[in-house]
This record gives sequence, structure tokens and C-alpha cells, in this order.
Amino acid sequence: MSRASSRLRNVLGHLMGHQQPSQLPHHLSQLSPTFFLERAAAIEPNAEAVYHVTANGKVLRRSYMELADRARGLAYFLRRNKYSRVGLLAPNTPAFLESVYGIVAAGGVIVPANIRLKPEDIAYIFDFAEVDCIIADAEYKGLLDAYLKDHPSIPVIVDTDTDATEGVLSGPFDDAVLEGLVLDRETGSKGWADLQSQTVANEDDMIAIPFTSGTTSKPKGVVYTHRGAYLATLANVVESGLNLPNGRCKYLWTLPMFHAVGWTFPWAVCAVRGIHVCLRKIDYPLIWKLLKDEGITHFNAAPTVNTLLCAAAEASPLPQPVRVTVAASPPTAHLFEQMMDLNLIPVHVYGLTETYGPITRGYVLPEWESLPRHERFAKMARQGHGFVTSLPARIIKPDLPEGVLVDVARDGKEIGEIVFTGNICAKGYYKDPEATRKLFAGGALHSGDLAVHHPDGSIQIQDRAKDIIISGGENISSVALESMLVEHPDVLEAGVVAVPDSHWGERPKAYLTVKKAKQKQEGGDALLPQRVIDWARHQSAISSFMVPREVEIVRELPKTSTGKIKKNVLREWAKHGTPPDMLVE
Amino acid sequence: MSRASSRLRNVLGHLMGHQQPSQLPHHLSQLSPTFFLERAAAIEPNAEAVYHVTANGKVLRRSYMELADRARGLAYFLRRNKYSRVGLLAPNTPAFLESVYGIVAAGGVIVPANIRLKPEDIAYIFDFAEVDCIIADAEYKGLLDAYLKDHPSIPVIVDTDTDATEGVLSGPFDDAVLEGLVLDRETGSKGWADLQSQTVANEDDMIAIPFTSGTTSKPKGVVYTHRGAYLATLANVVESGLNLPNGRCKYLWTLPMFHAVGWTFPWAVCAVRGIHVCLRKIDYPLIWKLLKDEGITHFNAAPTVNTLLCAAAEASPLPQPVRVTVAASPPTAHLFEQMMDLNLIPVHVYGLTETYGPITRGYVLPEWESLPRHERFAKMARQGHGFVTSLPARIIKPDLPEGVLVDVARDGKEIGEIVFTGNICAKGYYKDPEATRKLFAGGALHSGDLAVHHPDGSIQIQDRAKDIIISGGENISSVALESMLVEHPDVLEAGVVAVPDSHWGERPKAYLTVKKAKQKQEGGDALLPQRVIDWARHQSAISSFMVPREVEIVRELPKTSTGKIKKNVLREWAKHGTPPDMLVE
Repeated sequence: MSRASSRLRNVLGHLMGHQQPSQLPHHLSQLSPTFFLERAAAIEPNAEAVYHVTANGKVLRRSYMELADRARGLAYFLRRNKYSRVGLLAPNTPAFLESVYGIVAAGGVIVPANIRLKPEDIAYIFDFAEVDCIIADAEYKGLLDAYLKDHPSIPVIVDTDTDATEGVLSGPFDDAVLEGLVLDRETGSKGWADLQSQTVANEDDMIAIPFTSGTTSKPKGVVYTHRGAYLATLANVVESGLNLPNGRCKYLWTLPMFHAVGWTFPWAVCAVRGIHVCLRKIDYPLIWKLLKDEGITHFNAAPTVNTLLCAAAEASPLPQPVRVTVAASPPTAHLFEQMMDLNLIPVHVYGLTETYGPITRGYVLPEWESLPRHERFAKMARQGHGFVTSLPARIIKPDLPEGVLVDVARDGKEIGEIVFTGNICAKGYYKDPEATRKLFAGGALHSGDLAVHHPDGSIQIQDRAKDIIISGGENISSVALESMLVEHPDVLEAGVVAVPDSHWGERPKAYLTVKKAKQKQEGGDALLPQRVIDWARHQSAISSFMVPREVEIVRELPKTSTGKIKKNVLREWAKHGTPPDMLVE
Repeated sequence: MSRASSRLRNVLGHLMGHQQPSQLPHHLSQLSPTFFLERAAAIEPNAEAVYHVTANGKVLRRSYMELADRARGLAYFLRRNKYSRVGLLAPNTPAFLESVYGIVAAGGVIVPANIRLKPEDIAYIFDFAEVDCIIADAEYKGLLDAYLKDHPSIPVIVDTDTDATEGVLSGPFDDAVLEGLVLDRETGSKGWADLQSQTVANEDDMIAIPFTSGTTSKPKGVVYTHRGAYLATLANVVESGLNLPNGRCKYLWTLPMFHAVGWTFPWAVCAVRGIHVCLRKIDYPLIWKLLKDEGITHFNAAPTVNTLLCAAAEASPLPQPVRVTVAASPPTAHLFEQMMDLNLIPVHVYGLTETYGPITRGYVLPEWESLPRHERFAKMARQGHGFVTSLPARIIKPDLPEGVLVDVARDGKEIGEIVFTGNICAKGYYKDPEATRKLFAGGALHSGDLAVHHPDGSIQIQDRAKDIIISGGENISSVALESMLVEHPDVLEAGVVAVPDSHWGERPKAYLTVKKAKQKQEGGDALLPQRVIDWARHQSAISSFMVPREVEIVRELPKTSTGKIKKNVLREWAKHGTPPDMLVE
């Protein structure tokens, strides 16, 4: 490196940290995904951006120009009112999408909350994140009562989610959008140029604070940055293949937008001018109708959603292949097999709220085609490798002092913790330096998930650290047991937890739901727990010491909003007995 | 923004400029595209990475593991010898690809030179860029004689481009690779971990210095950075659709790798584990054979290459669609029409060496489908909009004081200069602060190309600033004339330049080549210049004052290595007469 260029570099080194975009060297701009909407509307203003069945049951279609205009109106409204930390409480509506763009365009930060939480938890989140305004869907506004009692002065902008933008059916959210548009017009029609879209102060600034699901402790606020969101967005475009060779993608919003800002898909779909097909709730007949009638090309969903989708009465093979990005809890090989039969092509990813959603992908290798069907799907069920814009995932020995990172053997056996480095790692936990320090102990982001590293370099989750079952000194993966149990022809879903055992320390206990056809049968034909245990003894996928000796059939498994089985609830059931209404007589 | 997070930001602001990756906050890593190769080899080591017919006529296939190993060997060799500014003089060979990765992995900078330049120009480039080592293909080694006379101590590593890695057919390049691999093994087999792949000192550091073609002045060295190359690479993956929904892409290297580092495609293809089909030279029968037999999915080429490809005797519609990324000189609607008929699907991009190659794309809109065929292809011939990782392209009034940027009207009529901002702008010209200042006058990168902004927001090139013809005070676009002339059924290619005119100031003169079938005919059937002029008078695409009154039929048009017509040579012909060997009797 010559002295001249090295000097230049030092100058830039200082400049790059500055906050005024005008001070940046001309060849640089700060990365931020908000620009993708302005760009989409500039390229193809008439392209359909949103398809939605509203709360009042009408089909709503909006173009990219309309979507961008509404986001812009919201931005001008928020900025005029100096709202810069905006809570979001809504299902997957157009208003949610518009808010993701409008809030950031106004220079603010998005704080989405899970609509399935208890009012106290929602109050905790909005209080902790110090929101100065909340945008709430009319159906869920009641969940704010606890919060508003303590924060009566925080304004709530209610979205009625109708097909009207004015008049009796529209609501405060539509009014705010219109007010903002008028404001822009009256102050010189500067449009997007005067908003935070093409330029942001610093790409490492906060763009959103989504919260972890907090099944066992208080939810934690995760700090997302413009740069991180941008690079995760581009990775999702490439990995899920949203840039179709012919035509634009049509993305169905089965994944909640409030979860990790919808894994960055509010941005990823706009980056390629795709169509957002919004969805107020998971409704399997409606999903199948949309898959069949609306030419959906992509959706994202947890394995449990896919399991129930495949089991729905409406399920039948689709004429077009639909790319389904699957994550949240480890999917089973059995599920992938079922999905493929319906032309639902899995893109298997894995990640955390702390990694903007997906950060690894199980890449399907052509050489697997010659493998037996079962082995091929087992390989597809692995979590794979780091995303294109990430650095590699590592698996580190779990019992070393905090901060000491030593990789496990690549033998497919030694269990360690998955850790991440690179730009798809969130910045840390909001207002929690101690938790942030622990998250990044030793310089890598700790997932809390246990996995093995296979000789081919792919990683495979065994369990959450706290879900592993230690029986007679041996590790039993609850995930491996669950994957095995759903292979039984009558089993729909399985959840396995550890229960105390005086001899072995712990032993596995399985909770199962059974397929509809079986539920309706009576007497001798019903699935008897002992029959599953006997069957399990003859499965080659597990060693005999792993066979669960306790199996209980329940009506339903307790799940988080993101479709993960609530293991803590199952442990409660094991301790205090299964609630009577969950028991199958 | 809370005070706590604002304080955190300021700390990071300073840190982000530092040079030691260990000082970066844990959630960040410096962007660099070299990692894509290490990653591809880790995910799919056995996947085919390279297909090549070698200089000794053998078919060579290498896997990603082999490609990565060879790049790693080269890197250890270069680093041991302290070569950090490495000249590259080769056609599109595997050694070129390996060097793109090996040089940067060693911490060095790539300096590619055009193999079609004169020895003096190559000497100028390597001297100006201060290379400390040169990797040269055996066939082109002789071009270094002029340089080596003045720099006898600079080592040249010759690649023989054979299918052998050892023994009598291999050469110094293979020896260097092997030596580096031994070196790594003997010093602890640290592999990629000890090279510059997952981490670089500063993403804004230089990664390569490609040179402009310099048709009218000395070539200029363009400074590419790790960050710029990374973001341009990701854009090319998305825009050219290299991430195919099914299977890996098979990219044919028709575009020279030495030109703007192959528009970042050495990195883009590896980012999706595609297959590089190398090609020592443009050979139309061979290209058609590869398109038909090897299942090529993508290639990039200038319009002139595509014109000759479509005109080749071997041309016939392909069974599979091949995505052809077209740029360099403005393509004609006529060309796109011909390509589509052969199942060559154009992805129309535009850019400069100063923008890492492509930076805009003509997005094909579904609403064009209802337009008459001719109109649709005319819209496809527009340069469109900024890439997904760029900011928007602007067109500014050309006659204002330097540095004053005012947009032209979006009326499809007012001609201005295309300028760019954002991360796909190169850092500047190497060792030329004055030219860099001019390049970025007013804060945007000046393309030197003249264009109009259409009401739909798309941009369309009219001409290079110096190629516009000003006749009687009116601007005549040589590009528009050329597009019109190739519509004549007998015309293959057209090049139009200004010649002095005592009355109008300037007038257009056209040089044409004719289709093979016509070349062979004699007498009355041959294409007479006057017949073309008469035909042109009846074309609605141009005004009558634009009709060229001088037309000359030549054997061949002079072109740059990137397929652009050398207008300066045509102006020489106009001034001093066409060289006799170019004249068609």
C-alpha cells in the first residue's frame, strides 16, 4: 500500500464515523433499507404492492405509488408531532408495513410488540422502550389499557384496517396519513427528498427495537441498526430467491411482522418490488385459497404452522412451486417430505431475534439426489451454513469459562453452542449492558442453541441449552426425539421435555397431538401411549436409552406466537399434571 | 434517541474508522467479497467451480475446493514474497480467477491490464500503478517487453494455462500455487484463517485498480474498495438473477475479466456457488457450442458481441432461457428483438469502469406487454434506474458551472449528463486528485454520458458528451441514428460520427457493416450507400434534419476491447479517408 493511499484511508477512517452525510466522502452513502420503498415506487409506480382482506372483509389492492405515498404521509405526520420512538401493535396489516417505512423515514425507531402477549408484557415493552407514540390496530387496542393507565399522555393512533381512506370507515391512522400528505404539499412538496430515505445520519444507528419472546424471563429489546437491517435484507432476497427470473414475487404474510420486524421481509419484498399479501391471522383454509387463487410464490412460517398447513383438509399439491422459508424451531425431515409433496419447496433457515431473524441456511446439494429419500430429507433438516452476508456460524465447547471460544470437533457428535459473528448480528440489548456483554462474550453472539458440527461443515441444532435432557450422564436431544416421534403415522406434533428421575437424573417425557382422523376414532383404534413407546423402541434413529418411557396424548401443544413449542409450559404440566382441558380422554 | 444510545453511537463512530478488526464492535465486520470463495468451498466443496478449455486444448474442470485451494496457495506464495500490488495480464483463464482471490487474500491489490492494449500502454499502467509483481498468461507475456526493459527486477509469474498442475506442461504460476500450499502446511496449516478473507483492515481500503480504456487519453487507474466491490457484487447477483431458484448458475465468461474486474462477476458467481465457464477468446462457434451443450444460464456482453453472436451461422433458438446482461455501448431495440427470438433474455444494464461496471438496469415492466412489439423493445433499450444497492441516477443540466447540479426536466427531451451517488461509485482515480475532484464535482460521480429523463423516471442515453453531433444548433444523438440504421434489413452494425460542415457546423456521417449474406452478393444487389440514405428518409424514428447524407460501407468497425465502437478512429477516417483495407469494393 502506497503512503498516499494509506494517508487517504486514515482521513476517511475518521470521516466514516461522522454523523453528517454531507461530510462523507462522495463515493460512500450510509446503508439503510428504507430507501427500497421510494426506489420501488420510482421504478414501477403502478405495480401492485399490497393485497389484503381488510378487517371489514373487503379486498384491498394498493400500488407501490400508493404504498409509498401513505408511508410518506405518515412520516410527515410523525415528524411534525415529534414522535420518534413509535410503538406498533398490529397483526400483518398494510398499516404495519406503512409504519415500518413511515416511522424510519421520519427519523424514528420502530418498536413492534407481539399482539399475543398479555397486557402487562405489552406495557413492559412500550414502557421499557420509552415510546412516545403508539400505532395500534383497532382489534388490539384494548391490550393497551394496562399501559395507558400509567402513561395516559402517550397518543395512540388507531388503524381501523378498512378499505376506506376517508369517511366513516377510516380512522385516526388514515387521518394521520392524509394530514402528513397535506403537510408535505403545503410546505413545498419536498416528498421523500426531505425524509430519511436515501441518506441516514449513521448506518450504525438504531432502526428498530423488536423484543425477544421472553418465555422464561422479561422480554429483551434487541437493537437493530440500519446497516444490519440492510445487509440482512439483501441476504434474505438472495437466499429466499425473492428476485424471480420472471416477474415479481408474491409474498404471503404468514410470519408475524412484529417478530424480528418480519425477519426484514417488509424491506426485502420491496427491494424487488414484490407483492405483500397481508393476513390478519393464520387461517389455514384462507391460506390454501390464497396459495391456489392468488399465485403466491413465497411465504415464511415456523414448522408448526407448516405442519398444520400440510394437515389441513384443503391441502393438495399446488400447480406452481411455492418457496417456503422455514425457521423458528428445528423442522423435521418428515415435515420437509410432506411439504415437497404439496409443491411447497422448503428454504430451511435458522436464526434468532438477535440475528434479524434468519442467519443460516441449509443449502440443498445436488449430490444428495442420489441418496435414499429419507436420508436426503434428514440432510435438509440441518441448519447448514451462514448466510451470504454473514460470517460462518461456529459451534463452541459449552463448558469453558465465559468468553473462551474453542470450536467443537466436526464429527457430528460433540455438542456445543452455536455462535455468530458478522454484520447480521444485532447491536445488543437495549438498556441492558450486562446482558449485551453476555450475549457477545468472547466477541461472538451466543445463540443459546446447542448443535453439532457435521464433517461436511453443516451445523445441526440439537436443542436449546436449557432443553437438553441429561440422562445417566448422556445428552439426549429433545429435538431428535421429536423428529423421530412425528414419523409415527398417527402423530401430528411432538414436544419432549426432561422430567426428574431419581436414578438417571433426568428422563424424557413426550407430549403428542394426533392426526384428526385418529382423534375421531374411539376405543381400541385410538393411539395408545404404550403403542408409541413400543414403536419407538424399534426406530433406528435413536439409541435405546433415549426411548421416552412416558408419553401423553394432548389436545394441543402450547406454543409461542412464532410457533415454537413452549417447553416451560410442558415442564409445568410434567410437574403439576396436565390441565384437564388438554387431556384426551 | 436516548442519551445512552447516542453516547454508544459516538464511541462506535470513532471505532468504525479504526484499522484493527479486533477493535470493531462485535456486531460489525468489514465488508469484503473475497470471503465468498472461502464460503462457497465450505458449503459445497465438490461443486464444479470452473470449466475451461485450456491453451493446450484440454477440458479442465475444477471444484470449489480446488479453486479455493489454488487461490490460497497463491496467497501464501505472494505474501511470503511480499508481493502486494500485483499486475494481471491474461485472458479469461482460471489463473485470472484464482489471482482475483489470491492477491486480495494475501493483503494485496489487483491491477488488471487489458491484453489488447499496445505494449507502451501496458507499460504505462503497470508503471503508474507501481506493481511489484506481474502474473501473465504465456500467450501475452511478450506484451511486457517494453515494461520489463525499464523494470527488469519486477518478477513475472507466467501461467501456461494447461490442464497440468505439475510436470512439463505446468508453469511458474502452478509452481507458485504449490509452493504456497506447502508453505501453509509447513507453518501450521492455518489455511484461510490466516489470510485476508473473513476480515479486512478497513472496508474502504483499496481492493483493485482497474484502468479505463483510455481511447482518447492516458488510461486512468480507478480505485475500487472492498465495500464498493462487495455491494456491487450483491447488486449484480440480484439484478442478473445469478441465484437461480433451481440449481446453480453456469456463467460464461464472454466479458473480459480485466475490464472493471469483470464487473465484479468473479465475486458474484462465487457468492452463489455458480460455475465459471472460462473462455480464452471470443469465438462465436465455440460460444454457441457451449450455450447448447453446457447448459449456460448467464453471460455478459457488449451489444456488438451480441450482434455478431446473433448473426453467427450457428445461431438458433436455445431450449433453455439464457440471461444475457448487456452493457457497454447503448444497445438497440432491434438487437433485443433478435436476442429474444433466440431465447437470449436481455438484462439491460449500464455503467462505467468508475461504477464497478453496471449501476443501472432497464427494468422490464409487465405493463409493456400490451404495447406493440417495436415500442416494447424500444423501452427495453432504455438504461432505466439505479441498481438495488445504488442511489438513484440523476441527469443534470450540462452547461452550468462545474459542481452545480440541477436536474433536467423529466420530459424525455432535455439532454443532460448522467451522474451517480452512493456506494457503487469508485473511490476516485489513483494518484490523480485533480481528475478525482472533477469526477466528483458537486458531490456526484460524472459519467460523461448524455441522456434524457423520461416522464416515467427511466433514463436513456443519447450519447457520450463528446460524441453528440451539433448540427445547425440542434443536438443529434449518434446513438439514435445508429439504432435506426441497424433496422435496415441488410445492415449489421453502424457507427456514426460528426464531420465538420461549413453551413451546419457539424453533420453526421455513418459507417456501416453489412450482413454476411449481402457481402457475398455482387453488383446491383450489394447495399448501396444511397439506398440506405433513401430508406432512412422514410424512418419515423428520426427527424429529417438528422438523416445522414454520407454513408460508407466498411469491412469492419474499429472497436475497443469492451466492444465499444472507437469513435475517435472513425473521426480519423472521416478526416483522412478510410484505410483501403477497410473499404468494401
